[in-house]
Amino acid sequence: MHILIIGAAGMVGRKLTEALIAAGELGGKPITALTLADVEAPMLTLAPFHVSVVAADLSLPGAADVLVASRPDVIFHLAAIVSGEAEADFEKGYAINLDGTRLLFEAIRREGLVAPWCPRLVFTSSIAVFGTPLPASIPDDMAHTPLTSYGTQKAICELLLADYSRRGFFDGVGIRLPTIVVRPGAPNKAASGFFSGIIREPLNGVEAVLPVADDVRHWFSSPRSAVGFLIHAAELDAAALEQRRNLTMPGLSATIAEELAALERFGGKRVVALVRRAPDETIGRIVAGWPQNFSAQRALSLGFRAETSFDDIVRAHIEDELGGRVPLG
Amino acid sequence: MHILIIGAAGMVGRKLTEALIAAGELGGKPITALTLADVEAPMLTLAPFHVSVVAADLSLPGAADVLVASRPDVIFHLAAIVSGEAEADFEKGYAINLDGTRLLFEAIRREGLVAPWCPRLVFTSSIAVFGTPLPASIPDDMAHTPLTSYGTQKAICELLLADYSRRGFFDGVGIRLPTIVVRPGAPNKAASGFFSGIIREPLNGVEAVLPVADDVRHWFSSPRSAVGFLIHAAELDAAALEQRRNLTMPGLSATIAEELAALERFGGKRVVALVRRAPDETIGRIVAGWPQNFSAQRALSLGFRAETSFDDIVRAHIEDELGGRVPLG
Ligand SMILES: NC(=O)c1ccc[n+]([C@@H]2O[C@H](COP(=O)([O-])OP(=O)(O)OC[C@H]3O[C@@H](n4cnc5c(N)ncnc54)[C@H](O)[C@@H]3O)[C@@H](O)[C@H]2O)c1
Ligand SMILES: NC(=O)c1ccc[n+]([C@@H]2O[C@H](COP(=O)([O-])OP(=O)(O)OC[C@H]3O[C@@H](n4cnc5c(N)ncnc54)[C@H](O)[C@@H]3O)[C@@H](O)[C@H]2O)c1
Repeated sequence: MHILIIGAAGMVGRKLTEALIAAGELGGKPITALTLADVEAPMLTLAPFHVSVVAADLSLPGAADVLVASRPDVIFHLAAIVSGEAEADFEKGYAINLDGTRLLFEAIRREGLVAPWCPRLVFTSSIAVFGTPLPASIPDDMAHTPLTSYGTQKAICELLLADYSRRGFFDGVGIRLPTIVVRPGAPNKAASGFFSGIIREPLNGVEAVLPVADDVRHWFSSPRSAVGFLIHAAELDAAALEQRRNLTMPGLSATIAEELAALERFGGKRVVALVRRAPDETIGRIVAGWPQNFSAQRALSLGFRAETSFDDIVRAHIEDELGGRVPLG
Repeated sequence: MHILIIGAAGMVGRKLTEALIAAGELGGKPITALTLADVEAPMLTLAPFHVSVVAADLSLPGAADVLVASRPDVIFHLAAIVSGEAEADFEKGYAINLDGTRLLFEAIRREGLVAPWCPRLVFTSSIAVFGTPLPASIPDDMAHTPLTSYGTQKAICELLLADYSRRGFFDGVGIRLPTIVVRPGAPNKAASGFFSGIIREPLNGVEAVLPVADDVRHWFSSPRSAVGFLIHAAELDAAALEQRRNLTMPGLSATIAEELAALERFGGKRVVALVRRAPDETIGRIVAGWPQNFSAQRALSLGFRAETSFDDIVRAHIEDELGGRVPLG
């Protein structure tokens, strides 16, 4: 089993790489080769099978052709620029998030014309395909009315994935990831960054700013669950999907207050005191347009699983990033 | 007021051209120039204002730039290849229905970078963006799960239209047309052709084949209503659309039995006897995947209007195509 990860140098890509190496197999078949591709050359990792690393800009014509020439059995397509950057740079967002994906899909289709080949392709979409007005809990058949270019690009890629799969060019599964918390590493500029920051920073003894009210509700899962979704999507029997190949992943609908209560249970009052309230109207307005809760009925019935309490999310962070102990605890 | 129609040589394009010339105005402003573009050069039409005709293939780079260089105030984008052709020729469908539209949208955006310009753009989408399983009556916020490449291409263009409008590159309105009956002219190869054929042919004394059962239900409007939708979409106050710029048009949900009853009321038993039942399993299966009924609540509340009985649809055909009388009547 040969696996290709595109966007392998990113947060989810690195965790997926680790998980695949640890498992050594996918869907019961031993992994024999792993190709890690990203515009920023991914780090070469030690593994009991062949790992190769490719630096490639998916938005450049020809790049995808090179990646698919070795005909991997499973392709994880995670490469994207984030919402904020796609909003700030219209052309770059469409070039990478839409055209990059289409170039990949076309490269697979053309490779399949040479000799039959139908790899499983797992694509990471986002709940940003939904935009207000929205019901309190969003059903699986809710229309996509994105309010960002990033969300538009993800929604278009979902449509392409479904059509290419229907045509038999590849065997696609699109998964709409919740907002992933706690995102490890340095704070980034994403408007959603504070959801992770108010857990990550205080647990490291560092102050974190909370720009929204405590009753703000959003939809979360841990990086660990995200990796679980990707692997389950790669192993899934596609017949069960019928014609609907894009799925809202399960997640946890929680408020900031619930986040902070979980933080206190793990870190105590001293840690929670490091969260400084500094309401920011701009961020507040952006966040007010985001989805708060989903039914995710189809994904649950297909066996996808996420955290069911914020304690689980904080615990996953402490176990996976902090060696299992709270530095300040 | 300068108006550009792309796809002007098509069935809807020709009827829209006639209607605009007859009205002489749009949204209360006198029409001063009309540009008719199509890959098949549209016929030059006499009008009390300047009419120009352009033969241009929208899917070729540069073609859209020429069309937008004169900065029309309103652009009707009707150019497309139909469902059957887009399904038979994957690359052609994407080249015309998706890339052609994107080249047009990009040409408008770039023209607006030279000097501010924000034309109203009316795009004809289709109920083919919806695919089974579907509820009996489809609400306005139903997810798009097209089961054809044509429907996929239309759904993608809707998403692009919304994002380009949100960005202020143009002022777009996307309208999902019902199946248009009675389509004038020779029978075409569309799987939906019989819905028009069983009215049009018998009224001309010619036999027509009915490949599906009498209880098959579908969603219709007349060519006259389609032109009405286009003009209303061009005149609409966009503020009322808020962020949802793509609308399911109103229509008539009717069965074949209701169609035939209306035909009999206008043409008598002799005319209805020209409908020959010849069940076709392939067509039956295709049609079974089509939507049957919509709420179209938003479009109705925005003032769009369609026929409310099949008699109205047959009457529109007799008035607009047969000079007001039934040849065999
Ligand atoms: N993290 C989240 O909360 C979240 C939520 C929903 C969806 N997603 C999606 O999941 C995927 C992975 O997310 P992440 O958090 O790991 O993002 P990330 O930004 O950490 O990783 C994305 C990777 O894609 C790479 N990339 C960007 N442009 C590229 C190009 N032109 N060619 C090749 N590689 C390119 C980047 O270098 C980066 O390593 C993305 O598609 C993202 O849109 C993430
Ligand atoms: N007729 C219907 O029932 C129906 C239903 C839903 C949506 N629509 C949509 O409404 C629009 C008009 O429909 P119609 O029935 O008049 O279709 P039509 O086929 O009669 O007209 C389409 C026109 O587009 C032109 N065209 C095709 N490729 C082109 C290209 N590359 N460059 C320039 N022009 C090109 C064709 O020459 C044709 O004149 C289409 O976009 C169609 O998809 C129609």
